[in-house]
Amino acid sequence: MVTRVGINGFGTIGKRVADAVAAQSDMEVVGVTKTGPSFGCDLAVRKGYPLYCTFDDLSKIAAFSESGYQCNGGLSDLLSSCDIIIDCSPGKVGAENLAKYKAAGVKSIFQGGEKHALTGMSYTSSANHFENLGVDCTRVVSCNTTGLSRTLVPLQEHCLELGGIEVNCVMIRRAADPGDSSKGPINAIKPVLKVPSHHGPDLMTVSPEIAITSLAVAVPTTIMHVHAITVNLPSGHGLDTEKVIAMWNSTARVLIMNGADTRITTTAEVMELARDIGRTWGDLHEIFVWEDGVSLQSDTLYYFQAIHQESDVIPENVDAIRALMGSEADWRTSVDRTDAAIAEFNGLS
Amino acid sequence: MVTRVGINGFGTIGKRVADAVAAQSDMEVVGVTKTGPSFGCDLAVRKGYPLYCTFDDLSKIAAFSESGYQCNGGLSDLLSSCDIIIDCSPGKVGAENLAKYKAAGVKSIFQGGEKHALTGMSYTSSANHFENLGVDCTRVVSCNTTGLSRTLVPLQEHCLELGGIEVNCVMIRRAADPGDSSKGPINAIKPVLKVPSHHGPDLMTVSPEIAITSLAVAVPTTIMHVHAITVNLPSGHGLDTEKVIAMWNSTARVLIMNGADTRITTTAEVMELARDIGRTWGDLHEIFVWEDGVSLQSDTLYYFQAIHQESDVIPENVDAIRALMGSEADWRTSVDRTDAAIAEFNGLS
Amino acid sequence: MVTRVGINGFGTIGKRVADAVAAQSDMEVVGVTKTGPSFGCDLAVRKGYPLYCTFDDLSKIAAFSESGYQCNGGLSDLLSSCDIIIDCSPGKVGAENLAKYKAAGVKSIFQGGEKHALTGMSYTSSANHFENLGVDCTRVVSCNTTGLSRTLVPLQEHCLELGGIEVNCVMIRRAADPGDSSKGPINAIKPVLKVPSHHGPDLMTVSPEIAITSLAVAVPTTIMHVHAITVNLPSGHGLDTEKVIAMWNSTARVLIMNGADTRITTTAEVMELARDIGRTWGDLHEIFVWEDGVSLQSDTLYYFQAIHQESDVIPENVDAIRALMGSEADWRTSVDRTDAAIAEFNGLS
Amino acid sequence: MVTRVGINGFGTIGKRVADAVAAQSDMEVVGVTKTGPSFGCDLAVRKGYPLYCTFDDLSKIAAFSESGYQCNGGLSDLLSSCDIIIDCSPGKVGAENLAKYKAAGVKSIFQGGEKHALTGMSYTSSANHFENLGVDCTRVVSCNTTGLSRTLVPLQEHCLELGGIEVNCVMIRRAADPGDSSKGPINAIKPVLKVPSHHGPDLMTVSPEIAITSLAVAVPTTIMHVHAITVNLPSGHGLDTEKVIAMWNSTARVLIMNGADTRITTTAEVMELARDIGRTWGDLHEIFVWEDGVSLQSDTLYYFQAIHQESDVIPENVDAIRALMGSEADWRTSVDRTDAAIAEFNGLS
Repeated sequence: MVTRVGINGFGTIGKRVADAVAAQSDMEVVGVTKTGPSFGCDLAVRKGYPLYCTFDDLSKIAAFSESGYQCNGGLSDLLSSCDIIIDCSPGKVGAENLAKYKAAGVKSIFQGGEKHALTGMSYTSSANHFENLGVDCTRVVSCNTTGLSRTLVPLQEHCLELGGIEVNCVMIRRAADPGDSSKGPINAIKPVLKVPSHHGPDLMTVSPEIAITSLAVAVPTTIMHVHAITVNLPSGHGLDTEKVIAMWNSTARVLIMNGADTRITTTAEVMELARDIGRTWGDLHEIFVWEDGVSLQSDTLYYFQAIHQESDVIPENVDAIRALMGSEADWRTSVDRTDAAIAEFNGLS
Repeated sequence: MVTRVGINGFGTIGKRVADAVAAQSDMEVVGVTKTGPSFGCDLAVRKGYPLYCTFDDLSKIAAFSESGYQCNGGLSDLLSSCDIIIDCSPGKVGAENLAKYKAAGVKSIFQGGEKHALTGMSYTSSANHFENLGVDCTRVVSCNTTGLSRTLVPLQEHCLELGGIEVNCVMIRRAADPGDSSKGPINAIKPVLKVPSHHGPDLMTVSPEIAITSLAVAVPTTIMHVHAITVNLPSGHGLDTEKVIAMWNSTARVLIMNGADTRITTTAEVMELARDIGRTWGDLHEIFVWEDGVSLQSDTLYYFQAIHQESDVIPENVDAIRALMGSEADWRTSVDRTDAAIAEFNGLS
Repeated sequence: MVTRVGINGFGTIGKRVADAVAAQSDMEVVGVTKTGPSFGCDLAVRKGYPLYCTFDDLSKIAAFSESGYQCNGGLSDLLSSCDIIIDCSPGKVGAENLAKYKAAGVKSIFQGGEKHALTGMSYTSSANHFENLGVDCTRVVSCNTTGLSRTLVPLQEHCLELGGIEVNCVMIRRAADPGDSSKGPINAIKPVLKVPSHHGPDLMTVSPEIAITSLAVAVPTTIMHVHAITVNLPSGHGLDTEKVIAMWNSTARVLIMNGADTRITTTAEVMELARDIGRTWGDLHEIFVWEDGVSLQSDTLYYFQAIHQESDVIPENVDAIRALMGSEADWRTSVDRTDAAIAEFNGLS
Repeated sequence: MVTRVGINGFGTIGKRVADAVAAQSDMEVVGVTKTGPSFGCDLAVRKGYPLYCTFDDLSKIAAFSESGYQCNGGLSDLLSSCDIIIDCSPGKVGAENLAKYKAAGVKSIFQGGEKHALTGMSYTSSANHFENLGVDCTRVVSCNTTGLSRTLVPLQEHCLELGGIEVNCVMIRRAADPGDSSKGPINAIKPVLKVPSHHGPDLMTVSPEIAITSLAVAVPTTIMHVHAITVNLPSGHGLDTEKVIAMWNSTARVLIMNGADTRITTTAEVMELARDIGRTWGDLHEIFVWEDGVSLQSDTLYYFQAIHQESDVIPENVDAIRALMGSEADWRTSVDRTDAAIAEFNGLS
């Protein structure tokens, strides 16, 4: 049976989730919403995703056809024809939306812009797929938290019986998205003065045992975040730099490469690599780790990772659908299936 | 008969030309060259393009297999198996390369980094496809000149009998490519002190009758060039703003959109639009013109256009192959065929 | 007799005007206004400028002393003790302010953020000091217009009897001020879609005979604007490149230097030069012209100039005070006096 | 007796040290060196500092006068007329220079670009002025290390008997100086792949007991570095957030301000504040700490500080002169004297 998926909000995240869902053989996109007729509707039409209005207001629905777009109804109509809805609407309307989804008896997945408290459950593929099996509602955590989960969960699992890891992370964040021309700064560094920042501890919503604190700054770049991470391992961990690299080499959705050998010295070259890979939008679903920036010295591990803000959470949304629908209990199986289908969809396999 | 095409140099331009050629039913990629085994070879392998060494030196050829890449020989071997070679090597080696191509009896196409004097013939699809029919060697002009040709040639043709147009252009250039992290400036504007600049007048190599001068500055951005253009039309031109917009709306590889309606106010949003279009690397083969930035006031036309440096010349290379091989005499037919095949190759049709 | 000068608004422009006025022996700063107690008041206190409240509201005036600042009254009080007021308030309140100044019988000078229509008279030192003698109210034009006036007025005067010059200018503007961290774009070029732009023609408010059109783009830098200028000279002009350079070498507040010799290749190095000069805030009152970017070819002159947005209008405000007060009829005498006093004030003479 | 000071190298650091020395009543600048006649000599002439040639070669010395600059001899001549030399030459020539200084019997101070091993002694005013008393040669540490010393030494002294502090620091570095237009990246983050970085541990050359590790990234800004710092305090430290703030409020050359109250939210506004302060070049000798970014939670202290790369080490050079000459044994007395003299020299007292 194919899971019928609706996407509420067809912007930066929504359009990517729609493609990733459409790529899967066990799912289909039954509709995407826009608030009104606009240039953004063209993409949905081109992709062949049925258009719905974010609202049920008849005049707002009618506005679409007046602008030449076929609109299939309001959000209620979309909800009545789907098994699960992916909420990709901008922040602050989560609570209101959740009530609608519940009333319609439709499962739902929110994004990291919403707080954990909204859903009481959060999700990353590697941390807690099993705990999410069959639940009605979850939240795929933010791009930053997803990135931390990818590299830290295997370390934590390795060290679990020894007492676990302690993490200190500084997030060097891009100040604006690549398509956002309004935000600055143009030539400055902006510290996030609420210290410690909320970024690192959000990891505990999916992996509660990891002790983590973080600080954050925003810098004048648009393409990727970078994390500078220090991990204290419990004594007796038995790891060395090579073993950590090997661990991440075998971790799903982590891409670890040598900066010196490949001349990938900054996030600029990482994004060029992503364009060569050839996914739509030049997306990089993997977390990029510089192999020659990894160093484990006695019990302290240092490393840098780069996060493609628009896309690392995309495959996690697909896995989360399987978790909530109970259609695949094993996270590794889901991950493999998700990634293979996306690769084929992009003509890469 | 399928034209056998070799690509000498598989970097920013070469990899794109290879894909565009591979997309055509009347051409095939018989090989691409790299100077030695390197991370960049992986892309050629993944794409299925036979690898050759830029040099004929046996030890250099052997180095590929030592690093695990299958190398099919040196440049001479590639030349012996192709009808035409696209030179995408970095600048300054054009003369040496041309001698090799001539000695091998292979037609050749150079890029805009080389001077017109090297080939004595230059090319853009709309300006002089016919003049290039059957010649042995030509040069596809630079991204900037190609952009000027797209919008100015139709204007010039319209005004030809009235004495032609006079153009003043200021090129606001991105200071570095998106994958280049070494070049600055980070926070400054750099005028090109050789005035007037060579950029505009290079247009005369394909359209000698257009009177054009230009100035250029480099600015701290990596994604697109912008041209600020003033055109003096001869009296009696019979055009108005709407007619100019209509002219460009029907011009191949020109994309004219309203910035206010689409919220495309800067090159950042133009590049997002390109990512939505979905070509590999997020390429934009079209020249982007802001419709609401076009204004014709009596005999003076003002407009802005944005140029995707890495990609606008790609389809022109395909058309140039047909010109030199004499396989298609009509430029519009070639353009349509090239663009449709690229769209299909990218899964967009 | 010393002219008593008030400054309404003590921000980026106001604080600089205050210092420039304080430097003059024939003027004194009798007060500066702030809207309320704030961090910015500290600078006024440190400089020794009497603080006034922008408003006459008693509770707003009282708020200053509650925060520990001595406030000498409201705007009306300041007006009652000055001969002339320099309006350095943010835009949009010009009309309201002008009414207050007139009612108080105080002369006034506005800045380029206001429109010419407000005052009916505009000002630059070199263009129309004489026409401003004794008037009640004027407007010192914007940084860009001031810059154009500096280099173009001498050319126009040279060519006046031959019919004058025709100018095409593209303004490459810094997108944000150095102390502004909110505005973008971070990585894009933004064309000003209203074409032609208002920037160039504003020059005609001080020099009506110069025929000028302009286009503008904003770019991701914070430190200076650059103008790329093409001037058509009337035939018989008798100039060559060297004569133009010599003309600007003898023009007040124009600094012309050879980029190759001095390694001043971008606005970054121009601003370093300004810091070496040693004025407060690292200001550059002069318009910077790259000598090796000047080229006169038959009747067409090309050049680039860089504009320090925060400061080039500062000495013009001082000269404008003398014009309105009728205290100095010769603009060159005023300019020399203004500049010498500022240099001495900065310990540079 | 006035200490006779020579400056070997009159660039970014040298010109600032010269002014700071000239400001002191117990020191005088007896000469500065340049490698040859160049635009940079003009500043020395304007400032009134005697010019010497970096080399003793007679033809190189003669070249100065041929270009119209008065040159007073070679480095040997300068050394023969000074008590101490401040080496502000670019890196890599330290060993060679030191041999010359020793041979001439002249004390010497190097900058942070040289390694500690060169001199065997390093210096910051607050950490080890006393240990530097009377030595022949020392090294003023880098701008980053100086910044760490300012805020961490008082904390370490407070916690010394409890076992001292442990520090984790991520340095977010500006990728280029404000006057450097050649270096990138324009739109990327560059991790320093040698981990942990050398930056933090360099602090141990002046304060060996502080346990510190660091990571570093370079970002596209030109104006300041930012440090994101986490400090583990020993239990029983007795501090809270307010006490730490109070500690730094009373620490020399630390400027701690509330970002929300003053709207100083990024390094852009910090630099504007510095320009308001009014030192030449808009320098900020103080380390800037955001008061509302300081938080002590049980035993972990978080804070951000911003470093003005070109200038924070300048007053330390002056204090170091007094240490080596043995003219002032108390570091606080020297600091007060240095800073008061610089303020007066800049017309700020």
